Amino acid sequence: MGVLVDLQNLLNNIYDELYERIGTGAVADYIPELAKVDKNQFGISVATTDGQVFSVGDATTAFSIQSISKVFTLTLALGRYGNSVWKRVGREPSGSSFNSIVQLEFEKGRPRNPFINAGAIVISDLILSGHQPREAIGEILDFMRYLAQDESIIVDHDVAKSEMRTGHRNLALASFMKSFANLDHDAAHVLGVYFHQCAIAMSCEQLASAGLFLADGGRNKALGLRVVSAERARRINALMMMCGHYDASGDFAYRVGMPGKSGVGGGILAIAPEKASIAVWSPGLDGFGNSVLGTAALELLAHRTGWSVFGA
Amino acid sequence: MGVLVDLQNLLNNIYDELYERIGTGAVADYIPELAKVDKNQFGISVATTDGQVFSVGDATTAFSIQSISKVFTLTLALGRYGNSVWKRVGREPSGSSFNSIVQLEFEKGRPRNPFINAGAIVISDLILSGHQPREAIGEILDFMRYLAQDESIIVDHDVAKSEMRTGHRNLALASFMKSFANLDHDAAHVLGVYFHQCAIAMSCEQLASAGLFLADGGRNKALGLRVVSAERARRINALMMMCGHYDASGDFAYRVGMPGKSGVGGGILAIAPEKASIAVWSPGLDGFGNSVLGTAALELLAHRTGWSVFGA
Amino acid sequence: MGVLVDLQNLLNNIYDELYERIGTGAVADYIPELAKVDKNQFGISVATTDGQVFSVGDATTAFSIQSISKVFTLTLALGRYGNSVWKRVGREPSGSSFNSIVQLEFEKGRPRNPFINAGAIVISDLILSGHQPREAIGEILDFMRYLAQDESIIVDHDVAKSEMRTGHRNLALASFMKSFANLDHDAAHVLGVYFHQCAIAMSCEQLASAGLFLADGGRNKALGLRVVSAERARRINALMMMCGHYDASGDFAYRVGMPGKSGVGGGILAIAPEKASIAVWSPGLDGFGNSVLGTAALELLAHRTGWSVFGA
Amino acid sequence: MGVLVDLQNLLNNIYDELYERIGTGAVADYIPELAKVDKNQFGISVATTDGQVFSVGDATTAFSIQSISKVFTLTLALGRYGNSVWKRVGREPSGSSFNSIVQLEFEKGRPRNPFINAGAIVISDLILSGHQPREAIGEILDFMRYLAQDESIIVDHDVAKSEMRTGHRNLALASFMKSFANLDHDAAHVLGVYFHQCAIAMSCEQLASAGLFLADGGRNKALGLRVVSAERARRINALMMMCGHYDASGDFAYRVGMPGKSGVGGGILAIAPEKASIAVWSPGLDGFGNSVLGTAALELLAHRTGWSVFGA
Repeated sequence: MGVLVDLQNLLNNIYDELYERIGTGAVADYIPELAKVDKNQFGISVATTDGQVFSVGDATTAFSIQSISKVFTLTLALGRYGNSVWKRVGREPSGSSFNSIVQLEFEKGRPRNPFINAGAIVISDLILSGHQPREAIGEILDFMRYLAQDESIIVDHDVAKSEMRTGHRNLALASFMKSFANLDHDAAHVLGVYFHQCAIAMSCEQLASAGLFLADGGRNKALGLRVVSAERARRINALMMMCGHYDASGDFAYRVGMPGKSGVGGGILAIAPEKASIAVWSPGLDGFGNSVLGTAALELLAHRTGWSVFGA
Repeated sequence: MGVLVDLQNLLNNIYDELYERIGTGAVADYIPELAKVDKNQFGISVATTDGQVFSVGDATTAFSIQSISKVFTLTLALGRYGNSVWKRVGREPSGSSFNSIVQLEFEKGRPRNPFINAGAIVISDLILSGHQPREAIGEILDFMRYLAQDESIIVDHDVAKSEMRTGHRNLALASFMKSFANLDHDAAHVLGVYFHQCAIAMSCEQLASAGLFLADGGRNKALGLRVVSAERARRINALMMMCGHYDASGDFAYRVGMPGKSGVGGGILAIAPEKASIAVWSPGLDGFGNSVLGTAALELLAHRTGWSVFGA
Repeated sequence: MGVLVDLQNLLNNIYDELYERIGTGAVADYIPELAKVDKNQFGISVATTDGQVFSVGDATTAFSIQSISKVFTLTLALGRYGNSVWKRVGREPSGSSFNSIVQLEFEKGRPRNPFINAGAIVISDLILSGHQPREAIGEILDFMRYLAQDESIIVDHDVAKSEMRTGHRNLALASFMKSFANLDHDAAHVLGVYFHQCAIAMSCEQLASAGLFLADGGRNKALGLRVVSAERARRINALMMMCGHYDASGDFAYRVGMPGKSGVGGGILAIAPEKASIAVWSPGLDGFGNSVLGTAALELLAHRTGWSVFGA
Repeated sequence: MGVLVDLQNLLNNIYDELYERIGTGAVADYIPELAKVDKNQFGISVATTDGQVFSVGDATTAFSIQSISKVFTLTLALGRYGNSVWKRVGREPSGSSFNSIVQLEFEKGRPRNPFINAGAIVISDLILSGHQPREAIGEILDFMRYLAQDESIIVDHDVAKSEMRTGHRNLALASFMKSFANLDHDAAHVLGVYFHQCAIAMSCEQLASAGLFLADGGRNKALGLRVVSAERARRINALMMMCGHYDASGDFAYRVGMPGKSGVGGGILAIAPEKASIAVWSPGLDGFGNSVLGTAALELLAHRTGWSVFGA
């Protein structure tokens, strides 16, 4: 109890300490619709494995989850295809820019991991199997609603359309993988799924709840259900640690020490195994495309809770 | 108490289960002296934060620690130079082969992290400052003896000489960094330090003890001393997790889930934060230069103890 | 006169000497329609600057000119846009595979030269300006008919369709350049032009005539017209020499010593400045995508005529 | 006769036209000794195949020939080892910076051509076979004296020492190739030869004479001797055309249209096959390491003489 009171207090303090820096960083501008977002927003939610949720700031405002969706589509694809997923995509950090096509050429169209764009596009291709694009998008959206126990979660179609109009580099990645026979479906259809999953809009509270199974050995007590096995939850966490922040993954591990996945909408999902699922959001990004305030908040949180996986 | 009995039992079981596979993998042959090692050897030691040591197999046989030394020279360099070390070397996974020179060119002579060869050579250059090569080697050796509380640890000069005669690629890396002004001393002198630190010979028991400070918040109770701050211990663990197994680091995180550093001598040092420091050794290597049996043993150990940092 | 008789004799001898090797090499199989071509075909035509044409073998059979078209679309684009073309594409050999996307990433979407696929796609984009795709294709076809003085030249629509269905890598290149803002039009439209120009079918005789202006200071006496300035003809020849055979351009210069441009249909256009325009064709390709017999024939021809630009 | 008078007149005019620009460009500063050279110098010499020599400006001042030496050491190595030289080094343009180590990694230690540093170091390694370094340097120097018919040509030992002290990148290249077993001798010995050949000091007049055999079918009438076969002369010219100006080779071919080899001392040797051997010198370099005025002079000369190999 005292701990829980402290956690709320802790979030309040972190919010206050970072308050002056709200608005720092640059909003993603390569997706026109995202460029319109007011960057003076900042929210944190922590969902603990004992079923509590603590929040501060703009924690109920929906934002574009963007690449954070990759954690959940990977979970879906592993559920449907198991380890055969790894025939199509690797599990190693990329060591270069998040949309680099160079590595794809050297490795014959097999992306390094499912959290860089090329890898997530392959995962979308897997999810599309046996479905129409609209159905695949529906399946992903249903999964997010189920995990967050919230039917109000929607896809922001303006964002999705904005991405489809400007996503030439993602089309290049998809076409390139298709030339190596590592894409089963039409590139435009796969990107339709991909851009819509990225355009799912969720609040910190919804996202923290949705990620809770990763902190709790694959279970979600609120749901009363096991989402994945404990081993799979560990492995997804490992992938988030190694590859969750593009080519700043090492820095995030060094500073924060928790598995995490960022999105260019300014959100970050982080996992404190056996303790909590944490969602932070603030639209201002650093040069690597990761939320400036979100990272700072997680660094303070990890430091003060001792939630780094690398030691108290 | 019961737990400790179980741990010995657990190691015995792991040893027995892997017994039939002893000798699999290939001994490193690019260093002639290492190629002579009998690969039918296998040892495990676990040093727990409460001061116990559990071992099985060839746990008291000294082997060439090779790249595992990089963890300790980084610790020394951070102790002497603090965060200014990061001006000279990065903290990101390399995403390519452990001795790749390509990345060095793109990043103007600044290695991606201190655990690839180029990065470790820069660290050796830092340690060499203000010293003769012989003194720097002595300082590193003294540090290992101090951490393991064992004055019998030595450098295997035959291995060091063997590396100096064949280390053309490391000379290329050092000269290349010098051309970018990221090496202060003569390349041959720096490599003298580097090859000697790699040629330090230690047993699993010595190595597990030497690494214990990383599992125990920077302290070593046996020494009654703090080696580094808790924060620095966490950060070194983070670096081991992200970069400790060359371009198979992602796979190690996925399978084992503990920070670890391997060496081509067949040893691996792994850390279970707040629980134990673990050293395994078996000379047969996989295609990435990591011990086949060592990795398998750590995978079983993590699975059965729940020591993965990514969840029980 | 005696020289001209000798030239016919020379072609006959070359044909006879290479006769046994007809059918060697592999037909391009990545474009399904090209894979159907009978590889037991071999033709040579030489159009001299004094207005004679000498031929041997299958010199009147039409084949898919493929990348040879790039010489002519460059000529068109230079005619319309002059040196501003070089803002969009470079003039240096690529030093890597003809469809490499790596170099494009390093050079921010600006292709190294107009004869690699990416560069030719940019040229097609320029030609498309102010036109519908159908009109642009028509303009290119008209230019070929005009240069060859032969209205019977057509586009092989089966080949064009075959390429459009399988051209994922070219779509990747086009999309990638579009992401760097180095493509003005819709990628699909540009590729429509590109694939149709590649699918133009011409015989050796038609092709040798069409290339004659490059051998004759920009003039075509048969047409009684200047096509380009003497300086521009020299410069196009320079580009063919440096970049005309993908990453075997150095080998072609070394062995043949004439500016040349090959296509995966098995054709090669070569220029002996001030002497002749030469077209050879045989569908069997070497590992670099260049006609085996075509190259061999040009090597013999250059040797016996002294037409190497590098000395008699 | 009239032609020869015109050629002197032409050189005078070119010198006068470029006079105002003398001193533009930057002197190479990575070799300290070269940085001391007065950049307000400019000379041209043309040695014609009929035995005349025409000069203007500082044509008798000796300068450091640097990479121009690579043409002559290749000639020596081909004379001794014939086509087996090509097992060790390729014949393709490099497509990247003159001292890039990236390409070497991709191609397993085999340099792309003998005119990039790595390739020239391999050639020096070949020349060193069976010799002491001092003897190999003597052999190269003797060859230059013989070709130029001038015993006064010397090695500038200050330049050679200056390069040895600062040549870390060349040591990296040599060590790297040694790690791929593409260097027979000790890297330091090979670089001793390499740096001394680069430090040979010659005037434009000496250099134009030394290169004359390449313009005259392998013969040097002044010597009354054949240096190489006509075929080998053509092939060396082809290599100069394709690879003689690092990654500005395409631009040189486009603007000048003659085979040429530049050095960072500010010299360029160019060949007009069957007509003349041309040496220009002015120390100011462009961003690619090629003489600004030298290139401009050759462009004017080619334009006015019609000596471009790509057409009059």
